[in-house]
Amino acid sequence: MTSKGRVKVGIIGSQFEADIQAASFGMIPDEAEVVAIASPTPGNAQKLADKYGIARVFTDYRKMLAEKDIEMVTIAAPNSLHAQMTVDIANAGKHVVCEKPLCMTLEEADLMIETCRQKGVLLMYAEELFFTPKYVKAKEMADQGAFGKLYMVKQAEKHFGPHASWFWDVDKSGGGVFMDMGCHGIAFCYWFLGRPKIKNVFCQMGIYAHADKTKGEDNSICIIEFENNAVGLVEDSWARRGGMEDRIEVYGDGGVTYADLHMGNALPTYSEYGYGYAVEKAPTTKGWTWPVFEELWNYGFPQEMRHFARCVRGKEEPQATGEDGRIVQEVLYAGYHSARTGQKVELPYRPKGVRVPIDLWLKGEPTG
Amino acid sequence: MTSKGRVKVGIIGSQFEADIQAASFGMIPDEAEVVAIASPTPGNAQKLADKYGIARVFTDYRKMLAEKDIEMVTIAAPNSLHAQMTVDIANAGKHVVCEKPLCMTLEEADLMIETCRQKGVLLMYAEELFFTPKYVKAKEMADQGAFGKLYMVKQAEKHFGPHASWFWDVDKSGGGVFMDMGCHGIAFCYWFLGRPKIKNVFCQMGIYAHADKTKGEDNSICIIEFENNAVGLVEDSWARRGGMEDRIEVYGDGGVTYADLHMGNALPTYSEYGYGYAVEKAPTTKGWTWPVFEELWNYGFPQEMRHFARCVRGKEEPQATGEDGRIVQEVLYAGYHSARTGQKVELPYRPKGVRVPIDLWLKGEPTG
Amino acid sequence: MTSKGRVKVGIIGSQFEADIQAASFGMIPDEAEVVAIASPTPGNAQKLADKYGIARVFTDYRKMLAEKDIEMVTIAAPNSLHAQMTVDIANAGKHVVCEKPLCMTLEEADLMIETCRQKGVLLMYAEELFFTPKYVKAKEMADQGAFGKLYMVKQAEKHFGPHASWFWDVDKSGGGVFMDMGCHGIAFCYWFLGRPKIKNVFCQMGIYAHADKTKGEDNSICIIEFENNAVGLVEDSWARRGGMEDRIEVYGDGGVTYADLHMGNALPTYSEYGYGYAVEKAPTTKGWTWPVFEELWNYGFPQEMRHFARCVRGKEEPQATGEDGRIVQEVLYAGYHSARTGQKVELPYRPKGVRVPIDLWLKGEPTG
Amino acid sequence: MTSKGRVKVGIIGSQFEADIQAASFGMIPDEAEVVAIASPTPGNAQKLADKYGIARVFTDYRKMLAEKDIEMVTIAAPNSLHAQMTVDIANAGKHVVCEKPLCMTLEEADLMIETCRQKGVLLMYAEELFFTPKYVKAKEMADQGAFGKLYMVKQAEKHFGPHASWFWDVDKSGGGVFMDMGCHGIAFCYWFLGRPKIKNVFCQMGIYAHADKTKGEDNSICIIEFENNAVGLVEDSWARRGGMEDRIEVYGDGGVTYADLHMGNALPTYSEYGYGYAVEKAPTTKGWTWPVFEELWNYGFPQEMRHFARCVRGKEEPQATGEDGRIVQEVLYAGYHSARTGQKVELPYRPKGVRVPIDLWLKGEPTG
Repeated sequence: MTSKGRVKVGIIGSQFEADIQAASFGMIPDEAEVVAIASPTPGNAQKLADKYGIARVFTDYRKMLAEKDIEMVTIAAPNSLHAQMTVDIANAGKHVVCEKPLCMTLEEADLMIETCRQKGVLLMYAEELFFTPKYVKAKEMADQGAFGKLYMVKQAEKHFGPHASWFWDVDKSGGGVFMDMGCHGIAFCYWFLGRPKIKNVFCQMGIYAHADKTKGEDNSICIIEFENNAVGLVEDSWARRGGMEDRIEVYGDGGVTYADLHMGNALPTYSEYGYGYAVEKAPTTKGWTWPVFEELWNYGFPQEMRHFARCVRGKEEPQATGEDGRIVQEVLYAGYHSARTGQKVELPYRPKGVRVPIDLWLKGEPTG
Repeated sequence: MTSKGRVKVGIIGSQFEADIQAASFGMIPDEAEVVAIASPTPGNAQKLADKYGIARVFTDYRKMLAEKDIEMVTIAAPNSLHAQMTVDIANAGKHVVCEKPLCMTLEEADLMIETCRQKGVLLMYAEELFFTPKYVKAKEMADQGAFGKLYMVKQAEKHFGPHASWFWDVDKSGGGVFMDMGCHGIAFCYWFLGRPKIKNVFCQMGIYAHADKTKGEDNSICIIEFENNAVGLVEDSWARRGGMEDRIEVYGDGGVTYADLHMGNALPTYSEYGYGYAVEKAPTTKGWTWPVFEELWNYGFPQEMRHFARCVRGKEEPQATGEDGRIVQEVLYAGYHSARTGQKVELPYRPKGVRVPIDLWLKGEPTG
Repeated sequence: MTSKGRVKVGIIGSQFEADIQAASFGMIPDEAEVVAIASPTPGNAQKLADKYGIARVFTDYRKMLAEKDIEMVTIAAPNSLHAQMTVDIANAGKHVVCEKPLCMTLEEADLMIETCRQKGVLLMYAEELFFTPKYVKAKEMADQGAFGKLYMVKQAEKHFGPHASWFWDVDKSGGGVFMDMGCHGIAFCYWFLGRPKIKNVFCQMGIYAHADKTKGEDNSICIIEFENNAVGLVEDSWARRGGMEDRIEVYGDGGVTYADLHMGNALPTYSEYGYGYAVEKAPTTKGWTWPVFEELWNYGFPQEMRHFARCVRGKEEPQATGEDGRIVQEVLYAGYHSARTGQKVELPYRPKGVRVPIDLWLKGEPTG
Repeated sequence: MTSKGRVKVGIIGSQFEADIQAASFGMIPDEAEVVAIASPTPGNAQKLADKYGIARVFTDYRKMLAEKDIEMVTIAAPNSLHAQMTVDIANAGKHVVCEKPLCMTLEEADLMIETCRQKGVLLMYAEELFFTPKYVKAKEMADQGAFGKLYMVKQAEKHFGPHASWFWDVDKSGGGVFMDMGCHGIAFCYWFLGRPKIKNVFCQMGIYAHADKTKGEDNSICIIEFENNAVGLVEDSWARRGGMEDRIEVYGDGGVTYADLHMGNALPTYSEYGYGYAVEKAPTTKGWTWPVFEELWNYGFPQEMRHFARCVRGKEEPQATGEDGRIVQEVLYAGYHSARTGQKVELPYRPKGVRVPIDLWLKGEPTG
């Protein structure tokens, strides 16, 4: 394992997130290269490898971890596998990039963080909103004092449901849209406000459009009170028609800003005939559509992967870590618990023995 | 009192709301005319009377109520006076239009409704959002099935603080921005969804920008769960810079719509020199601004007053009544109580002996 | 013919424009009422009469002109009939409201103006953009000095083709989209700038989407230089997909404003199922659409008809007259001639013997 | 001069454009590095060199051309110097990147192209709109058939005047805003439509806001007819208040798209206190502003420089060449001539002996 040149990367996964990662690494050839991919379904992994010119393909990710030249491994697998994979990667002496949410339980989060610490590898948490250029601009203005004292930050992410079928199975995903996308908004508010302590969490959720498919909530509203007296408002939906939405609002006593990654960036377009691609989860390319341009870059994926690669080389300090992921995990717990009780849940909130976060909504706290 | 021709109207008040009412009646000369105005500060009343060519001016509204030809009286006075005025108007045998919120307490609401019933006069609740043409269009589309089953409705109203100083005094206003403008959003969601029963209310609020001026909250977030399984999300602020904001979002499992009365309707404008008027509470007319056109009409004020006048003539059935105002009042109670306890408050929620709604947040439920 | 009360109106026509007029009069019941309608196709007239509760129906408009109580007659018939109808109406001693464009030739315009002058009736030119409330706001700001000295004004109106089939027949319409909608933009720039003298006109046009249907241009760009050194830029299209567009831009050395009657006012909406009505010429109500609200009011039609009715009563001075229409007609001539020659055409430009304006493009100036 | 690794670049210039270039190269460290900078004003060059860590500074660009390792030289100097510099660079055996517009006269353009051809170096024309990612998306959709047959393409670029004082001196700039920014729009339409032959050009221009500073036009409208029957409409202004504007509209008989690099991408923002940077030429950061994010990337500058560096390495074929610049130059000639004559000017249009393009408007064609 050299400490110069492009960081050699292995990807675990072959679906939507893995594709985004591979494409993103392809956009930063000066910093990193994907040399291997592992996925239990042989055809899928090969397909992605072919698409991005990745040399080595594995069906067992543990075999990939034995490859000496690989320095950093990214996890783009179902949430329920994150913890074990992280431990295995760390034990193989490689740096970890873990997709969001970090894991299923706080015990797993602790284990992941501790194992990486002991093995001296980085545990990097793939929250791309920290790198989304439009949102970064909002944060720069806020940090320059544009808005005075911030009192409310909002983030919303909405579409009509996830790509992969495992998301519908709450045993694999750990929860519905609050788990899948609420983790973005929680992390966003926390980061944007400068990582203040979180006082408490309230959450309202329900199943509105997909009761036939899942026990997981498909719409959620989450209110977070921070110790610096600011509020986070996080809205997520798998029940929103018309394509993807991702936007923020920032309120201070001296100003306000809005950023919308889709309608606020798109080319309003009408086509009788359709065209290649509009945007993630767009229902059609005919009629009026809101195509985005350079989607990955506008989300911040290549910027994120570039940062992670540079962290491996010691050029930058990790800005999105396992500790961030653990805080998010605690808020997810608190949110699900709140949705059940109808009460704000004060932090710290660390119930033991939780199987999957959504159980705190569906079944309540573990009793024994 | 004739039952034909233009409805003769008396206005109680001479400030911001009274001005809007007088201007709105001036836009519907076929249905109504303002013949008198009453305000305890003589100069103020006269000024408004001169501006709109109103013949009679009173400093004591009770004197105005003795005028035989007046058929309908509108209340544009501080919230704390609404109940007594309504009773007096009803006792004078005249129809009542009461500005929002209906009153201070549920006991007052009951009294107002009962008195008007006994006296055979209409108690009309001036919720202009039921008449806002852009929002009415959204409701028409929803009622036509455009969005399938509705699961979430949002309304937000935000600016940097009220016009009149009595709003800062919670003894006169009964509360801060949640009382002042949250009443709009509560009514809106209730109306838009078809007046379903309300299950419970959660509210988060705080004082973020005006702690030097008031004990009232200047930012609030309210979540309402309805029996038909839909959710209302109401956001209000007196801490939002940059002028006025009033917008809605409507989500159904078959679609979505957005309506913004300001940025979404305005003429994006840059002026080095400024101009006459941009929009309610705009900080300036220089630089970039968002001027609105035909502001009153776009809010629905003349349409609302036209409806009320036609109700007096029996041409239409009241669409915004004391009963609506009482429901809103109950949600205000529940919201303030929730903000104190950090819990959803189940409806019906009718604590006795509440002095002003905000006490439920600041002091808790009356003990005695 | 009384000189008080509501102005009694007769409409000539039964199609799109007649419907708009009838609906608009219905919105101003204090000022006018439609008492009769004339259209050569009996079923059509009756249908409109039933829709709006109009008592008298005629197949021969001359019969309608014999009705003594009618004070004002509106012309919503093909352009080629405007002149003769105006003369007949004036000879019947009734005021005239003529839809745009005023007529086919400058000789006709002269005749119309002169006849109305001799008969002592008003010739009012139905240019609704002078009454479009959003555009009126732009003009108010301009007149208040918001933009300093104006140097360029733009108006564009675009959709995918006209409602009635006679528009495709240039012998009846006199031209394509430049005649049909360019007349709006010409009038708009002229009015907005304060009716300065026009120096010259340049025009580019072609048939891009409807060569199978018409000899008329379906896209045009027109540049007008005024004596006050300002420029008008008018764009029109019958080849623009996706529904209706009507917008302006105003540039001064001290500022700028934009007004869009459709995208800039609409409720961005997604519907799986569709709904009642989006906007004039919208291709569908499914998928993403841009529904407008209170379409007629936002165009200014009822405000326009109210103004005309009040002019008949002497309460207002006509703001849109036959003289305005004649200026527009001259610019239409000049534009078509310019499109043929590729040169600016200096005004005054009054070639004799023009049959229909578009001939100046298709065939050149009359030789005889 | 090696043929591997990062392309070594020298920049001529130290002002606005040079800064953009240096920043852009800094964003593509895998492909190129700026090793030298030349500017006649020593302090300026050093300042830029310090800002971007550029090692070598020259006051005479000819000295810089003697540096053996430099492979590509970019010209960010006044337009009047482009030709001589290009010839000198080519004679030094280095590849040329020339900022827009290519030069002052068609004779210069011929000389530049011919010299580079003879010397075997690339002459690359720095039209960044070919690389603007939002516009590239529009072109991709068009090329995929989204809009059917294109019939009109528009581009507008507007602000309140140039950065550097030499632009006001038409002897150095060759013209006003049509020369400075119209060259973008001409190139854009030509490229977007697939480089069809140009039939003719019409142009209207004037001095509206800056007559005290310059003889150059500060507002222009240009209409270009192409042989494929499509039209280009190019609008440019140095008289438009409120910051920068750059946007396109694309019309086909099967659809339409709009792309706005500023209002259509920005974060609508209100600040009482201001902040670091909004956007090129923004008048302030207080009040309402339209800040952009990642401005250079959204314009396409780093993508453009990356392309040029890769062309030098033979990895890509030049997409923006001296030939493109020469076509633009011919249209500039034709436009200025048209603005004088009020007529469309047919291409080819190659008058000899033109001193600077704007003379064709101000003085007419050379007589000798």
